[in-house]
Amino acid sequence: MPGKENKKNVNDSETNNRSIRVCLSPALINNYRIENSIVVVIDILRATTSICVAFKHGVDHIVPVETPEACDALRKQGYLGAAERNGEVVAGFEIGNSPFSFMTDLSGKKIALTTTNGTHALHRAQHARAIVIGSFANMSVLTQWLFKQTESILLLCSGWKNNINLEDSLFAGAMVQQLQKTANPKDDASIICRFLYEAALERKKFYMQNSSHYNRLIDLGLQRDVKYCLRKDTNPVLPMYRDGKLVNILAH
Amino acid sequence: MPGKENKKNVNDSETNNRSIRVCLSPALINNYRIENSIVVVIDILRATTSICVAFKHGVDHIVPVETPEACDALRKQGYLGAAERNGEVVAGFEIGNSPFSFMTDLSGKKIALTTTNGTHALHRAQHARAIVIGSFANMSVLTQWLFKQTESILLLCSGWKNNINLEDSLFAGAMVQQLQKTANPKDDASIICRFLYEAALERKKFYMQNSSHYNRLIDLGLQRDVKYCLRKDTNPVLPMYRDGKLVNILAH
Repeated sequence: MPGKENKKNVNDSETNNRSIRVCLSPALINNYRIENSIVVVIDILRATTSICVAFKHGVDHIVPVETPEACDALRKQGYLGAAERNGEVVAGFEIGNSPFSFMTDLSGKKIALTTTNGTHALHRAQHARAIVIGSFANMSVLTQWLFKQTESILLLCSGWKNNINLEDSLFAGAMVQQLQKTANPKDDASIICRFLYEAALERKKFYMQNSSHYNRLIDLGLQRDVKYCLRKDTNPVLPMYRDGKLVNILAH
Repeated sequence: MPGKENKKNVNDSETNNRSIRVCLSPALINNYRIENSIVVVIDILRATTSICVAFKHGVDHIVPVETPEACDALRKQGYLGAAERNGEVVAGFEIGNSPFSFMTDLSGKKIALTTTNGTHALHRAQHARAIVIGSFANMSVLTQWLFKQTESILLLCSGWKNNINLEDSLFAGAMVQQLQKTANPKDDASIICRFLYEAALERKKFYMQNSSHYNRLIDLGLQRDVKYCLRKDTNPVLPMYRDGKLVNILAH
């Protein structure tokens, strides 16, 4: 819950000089200077959760691509193809965006992945100093790693087709709450997300029931996926995006 | 505070068919179809508050312009020129963006106004069915008027240089809470703002102390302005933007 009410505000917390900010939609990323920052890409339902599951199950690397066509081209080069649009598996692909699709031995395999929002956000962040993947599934590992870095942090919510979504905002708020021990919340979006998360702590399920994407997935019969994506620390990996692909830096 | 926790979520509330959405930054407005909607432009600190003050004090109309140069050109045609950038009066102008600047008899006068964020947001909304001005200063009058309309509603937060800000988001949340009696919250941004407002209700001052723009204005010695801008129903007017100018439709 929020700290004691006093004259000292969150922005004043003298931790160190690095900042933490939240970008609530990929469409707003040009407002931020990211060249010297670590960007955490967030797509809770379900891309960044599923990416963590795949690495926990041994995948060698994942190539995020913008289109199903690009995904198919890589499939022809020996990649497993995973393609999702609007919550559903794209016709012609066996795997979409469900974390359960990746719960099989993936040792030595490589995946090409395209999703409605998550892969787009990854590409928008490509000029950052470093890009890592964030989800409830790898939250503690991610937080511990970020504690050790010195760069400023931008939490980039993938949202839904450039609109803001609730689940990514809640996760961003959870991260701000953790990270403000070593980074200074510098924009109102980070404050909003933290307040939102703190208010939601005791009633996360109620909050989530008001998420449009949560309801979209429930309508598609994906309740099990949603429940899984909200569980913490199920897949303690740390995927980093570099040279056009995602690798688990804890395994390398 | 939020309604009782049950399986029925906010999106399901069967009120009528019109929707209410929140656009948290002018940079996101292209995500919304506004041709058939009423857009409420919000810039709590301080443009939309000051506009309400001016109409309460009898101004005939206000022309919002994008640049100080355009403002100056109108001044030469007999307008009072009001120009603000980064919280301060632009050099060469007598009036900026402070509500107290407009607390004088303005009967029969006309104002040209340019501000850092608010006038930009107004121009981004120009294709809407109708555009009205929202602030705590005219909240009840605005809400009552919106109750009587049938169009969908978009609450457009001016933000700060296309970034999201706390005070506009809080006001949007207060409006969603009121308007959901007759309009259906349709996006996660409206849910987020409503949750934020409900969580802030008992500690609005604490929340506001974390707003970057609040602190920017306090640093400029504008505490009195900020306090005034957060007071409800101080100026019961209803400014509407049409044909390039703002008029008070309650007076016409």
